[in-house]
Amino acid sequence: MTAKLPVGVIGVLDKATRYLLQLLIAHPRVEVTYVGSPTAISKRLSQSFPTLAMPLKTDWPIEAIDVEAIAARCQIVFLTLPLGQAVTWVPALLEQCRVIDLSADYRFCNLNLYQQCFQIQRQDFSTAVNAVYGLPEFLGEQFSQTRLVACPGSTPTAGLLALVPLLKRGFIDPDRIIITTQRGQSPAVPLPPQWTHHPDAFEIEHISSDLSGIEILLQFIPQTVPQPFGLWVTLCADLRDPGLVTEDLITIYRTSYQAMPWVNVLPAGQPPVFDQILGTNYCHLGIEVDSRTHRILVFAALDPHLKGQAGQAIQCLNLMQGWPETEGLPRFGYA
Amino acid sequence: MTAKLPVGVIGVLDKATRYLLQLLIAHPRVEVTYVGSPTAISKRLSQSFPTLAMPLKTDWPIEAIDVEAIAARCQIVFLTLPLGQAVTWVPALLEQCRVIDLSADYRFCNLNLYQQCFQIQRQDFSTAVNAVYGLPEFLGEQFSQTRLVACPGSTPTAGLLALVPLLKRGFIDPDRIIITTQRGQSPAVPLPPQWTHHPDAFEIEHISSDLSGIEILLQFIPQTVPQPFGLWVTLCADLRDPGLVTEDLITIYRTSYQAMPWVNVLPAGQPPVFDQILGTNYCHLGIEVDSRTHRILVFAALDPHLKGQAGQAIQCLNLMQGWPETEGLPRFGYA
Amino acid sequence: MTAKLPVGVIGVLDKATRYLLQLLIAHPRVEVTYVGSPTAISKRLSQSFPTLAMPLKTDWPIEAIDVEAIAARCQIVFLTLPLGQAVTWVPALLEQCRVIDLSADYRFCNLNLYQQCFQIQRQDFSTAVNAVYGLPEFLGEQFSQTRLVACPGSTPTAGLLALVPLLKRGFIDPDRIIITTQRGQSPAVPLPPQWTHHPDAFEIEHISSDLSGIEILLQFIPQTVPQPFGLWVTLCADLRDPGLVTEDLITIYRTSYQAMPWVNVLPAGQPPVFDQILGTNYCHLGIEVDSRTHRILVFAALDPHLKGQAGQAIQCLNLMQGWPETEGLPRFGYA
Amino acid sequence: MTAKLPVGVIGVLDKATRYLLQLLIAHPRVEVTYVGSPTAISKRLSQSFPTLAMPLKTDWPIEAIDVEAIAARCQIVFLTLPLGQAVTWVPALLEQCRVIDLSADYRFCNLNLYQQCFQIQRQDFSTAVNAVYGLPEFLGEQFSQTRLVACPGSTPTAGLLALVPLLKRGFIDPDRIIITTQRGQSPAVPLPPQWTHHPDAFEIEHISSDLSGIEILLQFIPQTVPQPFGLWVTLCADLRDPGLVTEDLITIYRTSYQAMPWVNVLPAGQPPVFDQILGTNYCHLGIEVDSRTHRILVFAALDPHLKGQAGQAIQCLNLMQGWPETEGLPRFGYA
Repeated sequence: MTAKLPVGVIGVLDKATRYLLQLLIAHPRVEVTYVGSPTAISKRLSQSFPTLAMPLKTDWPIEAIDVEAIAARCQIVFLTLPLGQAVTWVPALLEQCRVIDLSADYRFCNLNLYQQCFQIQRQDFSTAVNAVYGLPEFLGEQFSQTRLVACPGSTPTAGLLALVPLLKRGFIDPDRIIITTQRGQSPAVPLPPQWTHHPDAFEIEHISSDLSGIEILLQFIPQTVPQPFGLWVTLCADLRDPGLVTEDLITIYRTSYQAMPWVNVLPAGQPPVFDQILGTNYCHLGIEVDSRTHRILVFAALDPHLKGQAGQAIQCLNLMQGWPETEGLPRFGYA
Repeated sequence: MTAKLPVGVIGVLDKATRYLLQLLIAHPRVEVTYVGSPTAISKRLSQSFPTLAMPLKTDWPIEAIDVEAIAARCQIVFLTLPLGQAVTWVPALLEQCRVIDLSADYRFCNLNLYQQCFQIQRQDFSTAVNAVYGLPEFLGEQFSQTRLVACPGSTPTAGLLALVPLLKRGFIDPDRIIITTQRGQSPAVPLPPQWTHHPDAFEIEHISSDLSGIEILLQFIPQTVPQPFGLWVTLCADLRDPGLVTEDLITIYRTSYQAMPWVNVLPAGQPPVFDQILGTNYCHLGIEVDSRTHRILVFAALDPHLKGQAGQAIQCLNLMQGWPETEGLPRFGYA
Repeated sequence: MTAKLPVGVIGVLDKATRYLLQLLIAHPRVEVTYVGSPTAISKRLSQSFPTLAMPLKTDWPIEAIDVEAIAARCQIVFLTLPLGQAVTWVPALLEQCRVIDLSADYRFCNLNLYQQCFQIQRQDFSTAVNAVYGLPEFLGEQFSQTRLVACPGSTPTAGLLALVPLLKRGFIDPDRIIITTQRGQSPAVPLPPQWTHHPDAFEIEHISSDLSGIEILLQFIPQTVPQPFGLWVTLCADLRDPGLVTEDLITIYRTSYQAMPWVNVLPAGQPPVFDQILGTNYCHLGIEVDSRTHRILVFAALDPHLKGQAGQAIQCLNLMQGWPETEGLPRFGYA
Repeated sequence: MTAKLPVGVIGVLDKATRYLLQLLIAHPRVEVTYVGSPTAISKRLSQSFPTLAMPLKTDWPIEAIDVEAIAARCQIVFLTLPLGQAVTWVPALLEQCRVIDLSADYRFCNLNLYQQCFQIQRQDFSTAVNAVYGLPEFLGEQFSQTRLVACPGSTPTAGLLALVPLLKRGFIDPDRIIITTQRGQSPAVPLPPQWTHHPDAFEIEHISSDLSGIEILLQFIPQTVPQPFGLWVTLCADLRDPGLVTEDLITIYRTSYQAMPWVNVLPAGQPPVFDQILGTNYCHLGIEVDSRTHRILVFAALDPHLKGQAGQAIQCLNLMQGWPETEGLPRFGYA
């Protein structure tokens, strides 16, 4: 039996960090050798994450962020820091280990777009340009060679899985794409402020153009609903060929994702149901052509904490290491 | 003090009937003199609607449907029957009293469209053609002269209040209108079967054309969310004039609804919040122009049991009788 | 027609204040002539309570607290301030008007108990001793003569309505009373800190002893559930007479509350359901004797914002003024 | 590597069967070789359980129940049938394989009690008397020798884990035990019919007496809350020794469960939180002594689908086979 891969996690003490730690602890090929945070140093894991500490029957310290010490103990480091903070640590970390960042900091290889989106000044252009966007279904083959993977947001993950197969084939009008999202949140905020210039919209536009070579102008309508329950994204687009029917499009999507273990294309007439994706790393896609309007509707559903965040980070790790893509990821939920 | 108006209710024993009875009992100008049902005859009100019976400290019988007896006791009869059943009673009732029907049976003055939508054969063409669609904000002035008002569905109510001001002014492309709906339902069904030919879509297309003289082809995406919480409708349309901004459109909507007590147009940047409409008869409209895409987004929210159903029936009653439009309707909720 | 009663509200800008204002605005015999707050002076009502401002189509200022000015404009003042703050204003206000306080500040006529409960020092012993506890079902006949009514908490309201009829008749062992509560709260906190010495427990013990002349030692278990939905209280007590059956106890409760419009005693086998009390001022009581254990279970349910708070304050107002107890209070909900 | 254990499942097509199949499919030492149902023969797994079929990328048939065929293919058979149906198959199955039954059919070794509880006549007294009640924390050492394990109900699991350590030590008055339960259910039914003679109460009384040698008379108050969220049980009992404090009792519970991987006793002042147990096989116990009343409160929380049902069945399987008790069971949830 080979030795386990030593990994570290640098994060604030929120759900993303907790779920990532849970997946890493349960992963059969990984050993967590470091947990650090900019804010909770000297606390112990049990104080911040009782759920984690109980099954472990042990109790780790939350350590300060010392790049040398981390690099001495970890081969891969995950970052779950707030927007703009990964920048502080990633350039130095990359000199000694590989990094999987869950924030938006390295999703835009063009930092001008990042700076415009988030109003944050950055100097690390050369680092950003070498990051690979962590969407395994389209860019997974680049992961084994990269030192820095920038994991997508949960809404862009669902949006891009719905959009890119259409765009690559030139099936739709790139100026008439509408993506509506419903994310569980309590209490619900029907629309975020400045939603017409939402970073998720830019992320989808930027990455889909990179992947397909086609510039799009996206109508993005981000909404929340008053109950935690997963992420539901609806893509609506104008089909160029009015002769295409639902079954044609299902065939296209099945072809696109046939080798992909974590994307399921549902049969005609079956939209996704949350019951089947909550607690798993799956993204489910329902495909419908509206024969009255000649538009395609794609309904994408995923668990925002798993395929939308911590689960996708593990999927990236598996591909970076050349392990099976499903290793250590939940196929079943108990919601 | 003048005598109260005697009214009757014919319905099955569901929430629509209960909420309608609650509003009628609380209405200062109305007296309920008959409650009937095709299914629960000889039961008493307390068995079917304990909520109603308790405050009344009395207990009415649920009577059989005898048109002569009803007409002798009521000047206006409300019907809350399942699809296709109002047809059985309305023609006879109309000979002796006025009728407010809450089902879809008389929403289409063209019965060919009804028959195509619902696959139900009908003979009462002459009755249907004389019904007035019960949307007070657009057709209220016709109510005083009609004997039959056909109350709208809750989704068409929200959709038409969002759509018609744009359509009447020719501001939008009539072939590029998209209406997405989110209605609380437990358990959630993400999409109803045959949703691409949903009766609500036909109802919105049919009535909006009647009201504006413009034919539209509607992209309709009806969705449910896993929690009872109200009805949320999003209209997305292409503005013909790219120079229009959010404030322009808010002015247009405010002008359209300034005399209407039950529609509120919200300030820029304030989408509707359910907290403010649940338990009331209001429809709230949030207006946004997306300056990147030159599209208008209208967010409409209402309580599907009140402005979407029983409350709107009372609003119709008020206008039929020449009473104040707000009489007997709740302005405040306690959700 | 007589002039309306001018009333004022001093409060922080939370739901209690909003619901109280809603009820006052809708009350046919009342006119709100002053709204003040220690914190939001110079804001307007529409900024803090858009729900209120919209139906009013007007916009009041939130004023500073000036006792002279308030007294010049109001005959009765309601206070919805955080714990310990009513004390600052009530003694001065009482010299010129009558006061209905919704906080816990005047619920304990014995201020030693208050000081022990809340660790707050007080000097206004003479004011506190003259307050009447605002539970209309037991103390309503004192309201017309008092200048200060101290409205109960929502849990004590439900608990006392369940408990006092048993205690007054000596039917139960006063040392073996258990009250379990479930209140909707999001996110749920299964138990509040220091729950074994919870102020609600002391409030129930203190008032029930006052009302019955019997000292009790209460086992109090306050719990929350992860969904806003009303307040549910379960009383469990040992019956002294093992021959009593459910119907006997229902008769006792019906006799106790027969003249009370806002308490309903349900038939045997019918526990309260929230559907029937949310949005109303009712408290529903379900009574069961467990024949195996000779214990009585009383299930009390109410809407914590209405009968548990703002609605009860209006009920107190009605009795203070000699008006019908039901005036201006909702009998029906639309949840 | 040794061969996997061939197991079968006979069940109706509900959540219990689905979750059991999920756990079996994910279990590293087990192979599912048969799935049968009395009602859905000739359907395929994908039609009844799409969630299961997708990750498998295969599709099993739902077979008829043929005892010979099952026995030829399985060493252990799980039953998830409605009340009273396991009886039909278990005696014949036991002649050729071992059985884990998830229904109530074999929880009462004394069938007179079963017949009285459920009003179902039975003939298989000799089978019932040999069943072992499947609560691993108390009876796990008997599992390796038995051919029939009868898994507990979810409420009795939580109730017995809270109760038995107290009862065995004689710490509490056996006639003054009160168990209140809150289970998520949509829509909520505040109390089940005939709740004063609820089978769960008899199950707790019967098994706790078996385990401790002490007869108890249980006050049982089963309640539901309007939101799926787990099972919460509150035990309240009179301590015989008034000198015991919270820390003493926590020590007692920790001693009782120190070798048990699936029961966690929480620190003082920390009641269970669902966030930490949903999606896992844990039962969490919070212990509090109320120093005012000298009563002990035990709060037990578990996921009713895992530790309360399918997860516990796997835990039983592990012990029957001599495998680690934690094998194949989730330690972490993603709710």
